[in-house]
Amino acid sequence: MSEKFLRVEHIGLAVKNLNDSIRQWTEILGEPPYHEEEVASEKVKTIFFQVGETKIELLGGTSPDSVIHKFIEKKGEGIHHIAMEVKDIEAEMHRLKSLGYTLLNETPKRGADNKLICFVHPKNTGGVLLELCQSIVE
Amino acid sequence: MSEKFLRVEHIGLAVKNLNDSIRQWTEILGEPPYHEEEVASEKVKTIFFQVGETKIELLGGTSPDSVIHKFIEKKGEGIHHIAMEVKDIEAEMHRLKSLGYTLLNETPKRGADNKLICFVHPKNTGGVLLELCQSIVE
Repeated sequence: MSEKFLRVEHIGLAVKNLNDSIRQWTEILGEPPYHEEEVASEKVKTIFFQVGETKIELLGGTSPDSVIHKFIEKKGEGIHHIAMEVKDIEAEMHRLKSLGYTLLNETPKRGADNKLICFVHPKNTGGVLLELCQSIVE
Repeated sequence: MSEKFLRVEHIGLAVKNLNDSIRQWTEILGEPPYHEEEVASEKVKTIFFQVGETKIELLGGTSPDSVIHKFIEKKGEGIHHIAMEVKDIEAEMHRLKSLGYTLLNETPKRGADNKLICFVHPKNTGGVLLELCQSIVE
C-alpha cells in the first residue's frame, strides 16, 4: 500500500455528449450523478458519480478548442486520465520532477471539487495521463 | 453512492515491457508491487500495486497473440480497462444485458486474484472497457 498515494480520487472519462453519457452511466451504475461543476479555465463541464472512494467524472468540452474535444478527435471517447490523491502534492511534484518526470504545471493549480492538482505527462507513465490531487483545507 | 457498484477494484494498464513498467510505477508510487500472477487463459501476466482500495494492475502479454499485444499495436500503451466490484455479478450481468448492453461473456468467468469477472463491450460505455468483478467466497 502506497503511503504517498492515498486513493484513486477519480477517473476522468472524455465524452462527446454529456446528456447521453449521464443517461448511460446512471443506467450502468444504477444511481444518478451527485454533482456537476464547470471548470471555465479548462473549458470543461464535469459530472460526478461515486463508486466507493472513487469518483467517475464525465468530462464534456464546452468549446471546440477544449482539451476534451481535441482528445476525442484524436483517440475517440474513453478514459482520459486517472487522478490519485496524494498526502502532499508539493512534495510529490518535487520528488517526481527530480526523478525526471515531466509535470504539465510547475506549481499546483486549482481543479474541480476544491482540489489542488498537477498533471504528469503521459510520456513518462506508459501512456497514462496521471493527475495528482490534494484537497484544499480552508 | 452506487449500491450495486462497491468500488473501483482495479485499473488495468497495458504495458509493453513489464520490467520497465514495474520500475516506473514503483518509482511513481514510492512502493513496490505486492503480488504478481499469470492468467494463462488470457496470455497475460499481471503485476499488482495498491492505492487505497484500488489495485493498479500492469498487464503484459505473454504471447504475441494476447489481447494486450493487440491493444498496444492499435492504441499504444495506456489504460486498458476499469474493473468495478459489484455486490452481485450475476444480477448485474442480467440487468445490463436486459438494458441492451453487450457482455463479452455470457456467464461469469474466472479472473486474476480469485475473482469472477465479466467484461462489458466498450461500444455501450462511451469507449470504456468495463469489467465487473466479485470475489469468490470459498
